[in-house]
Amino acid sequence: MSVTVVGSIAFDAVTTPFGSRERMLGGSAVHFALAASFFDTVNVVGPVGDDFGEDEYAVLRTREVNTDGVEHVRGGKTFFWRGEYGWDLNDRRTLDTQLGVFENYVPKLSETSRSAEVLFLANIQPDLQREVRAQCADARFAALDSMNLWIETTRESLIETIAGVDCLMLNDAELRQLTREPNLVRAARQIREWGPRVVVAKQGEYGAAMITDEGFFALPAFPLETVVDPTGAGDCFAGGFMGYIAAHRDGDPDHDLLRRAMAYGTALASFNVEEFGVERVTRLTTDEIVERVAELQQITQFVGKPIALRE
Amino acid sequence: MSVTVVGSIAFDAVTTPFGSRERMLGGSAVHFALAASFFDTVNVVGPVGDDFGEDEYAVLRTREVNTDGVEHVRGGKTFFWRGEYGWDLNDRRTLDTQLGVFENYVPKLSETSRSAEVLFLANIQPDLQREVRAQCADARFAALDSMNLWIETTRESLIETIAGVDCLMLNDAELRQLTREPNLVRAARQIREWGPRVVVAKQGEYGAAMITDEGFFALPAFPLETVVDPTGAGDCFAGGFMGYIAAHRDGDPDHDLLRRAMAYGTALASFNVEEFGVERVTRLTTDEIVERVAELQQITQFVGKPIALRE
Repeated sequence: MSVTVVGSIAFDAVTTPFGSRERMLGGSAVHFALAASFFDTVNVVGPVGDDFGEDEYAVLRTREVNTDGVEHVRGGKTFFWRGEYGWDLNDRRTLDTQLGVFENYVPKLSETSRSAEVLFLANIQPDLQREVRAQCADARFAALDSMNLWIETTRESLIETIAGVDCLMLNDAELRQLTREPNLVRAARQIREWGPRVVVAKQGEYGAAMITDEGFFALPAFPLETVVDPTGAGDCFAGGFMGYIAAHRDGDPDHDLLRRAMAYGTALASFNVEEFGVERVTRLTTDEIVERVAELQQITQFVGKPIALRE
Repeated sequence: MSVTVVGSIAFDAVTTPFGSRERMLGGSAVHFALAASFFDTVNVVGPVGDDFGEDEYAVLRTREVNTDGVEHVRGGKTFFWRGEYGWDLNDRRTLDTQLGVFENYVPKLSETSRSAEVLFLANIQPDLQREVRAQCADARFAALDSMNLWIETTRESLIETIAGVDCLMLNDAELRQLTREPNLVRAARQIREWGPRVVVAKQGEYGAAMITDEGFFALPAFPLETVVDPTGAGDCFAGGFMGYIAAHRDGDPDHDLLRRAMAYGTALASFNVEEFGVERVTRLTTDEIVERVAELQQITQFVGKPIALRE
């Protein structure tokens, strides 16, 4: 009865028009785990180096994240990413990436991690994702994220991995790149032919769209006057989305449940970008989440009224 | 009790990955008028040349659009635009623009056009838009569209014109360019300080967002597997939006009414792009519009349910 996430645990150095941080806790598995922790217990799986200390573990444990799957590689350095965002926050530049302990990482899942009902394969090499998927054979709902690098270098392996999950979650542009199809509805159909029955397109400031056999659903991003740091927004979205699914143990999630999951994902992502790194989400309260989902409902609904149109 | 639109009446030559048309009826005022004609009577105001014939008038009259404001300039040529869309339909190239009769056009509105309750200033030179706004002093709701050309060449005049309308409707990128503010919520606040109380951001395939004093609202574009020709989608959106407002004569439109107007705008735009030029909208039925708005409501709503979150 829990969620397992496999992905990066990192230190990030980030500069945005609103300031900068030289070294803060980050990584896809961390952002995901903190967001999902509001819904269910989370097992985080990934490697860290000697520079990863008690302060970092404490952040995860404050949210009762199970860190038994965090593998400490002696003599190694934790994954490091340095990036810069422009005036337009969609404009992101990677300045440095140091794989560190990630270079030779092979995930070995504990019994607890393997028995999770819900599994999220954050953006790592597709062969590794497939390996993890095989270890969690009983997960009732598995999703994966990926990136342009894997689409360009290991497309066939990625497609094979995608075939083994219930849900693919990618950026808009990555979905197009992967399927070579510019139209989202067609791209999603192609992916559903490969295996997953749920496709989620992350659209940054425009929100997210979902396509299942039961149809299409879309939500805008929650409108914010100040977006301080977009790093990790997609992983927080995934954390809210998968966490919601994990918390509802009524079998295979249907379209209505998945819509609500999208709303919680959108809410979590919106909090994440309000401050640097994990600063906002670690201070978040459940009341704030509930309130934001209610606001999101408010700003996306219109009430139909009969109208006399002119033939 | 009608809508007046001032804008271009044009012949378009368009190539998309799905085919091409060498010469078809187009222009912002035409697309707007056909879309708005499902809601109220529409007065279309703009110049045409000798090449504009009975076939073109017939298209407008079939939808009972009042063409008295169409000014035939003897010896002139109708505005002509040639454009090409790429594999990704967001990628549009203008290959030729011939202003023709538009070059020295000064709108002179008839009593009927001037007395319309609702006014749409489609994308023309801002000084002309202001002139028309002055002629329609009694319109209870006026909106305007513009483009990057006017932002770059006549920004001050454009801002002065914007000050005189109730609603500004621009593309996302144009809103940023105009306000020099990348964040949509802040950009909209800046514009509302200039005058309009309603700001609509057209977001292409991502739909549209609206900001008023009462808050934020957003709708995705209606999902389509095949978008044949995006030309005129924004004007059809405006036609559905303004037409809906015109059809509801209950004073100043409130946020709830404007949300519904957004839904009808979204529906009209989605039909427009299904075929080339005005081909689809001229064949459209009121039942199809009602059905699409209902579907749009379906694909944007989620039902909130109580949830026990983990503190």
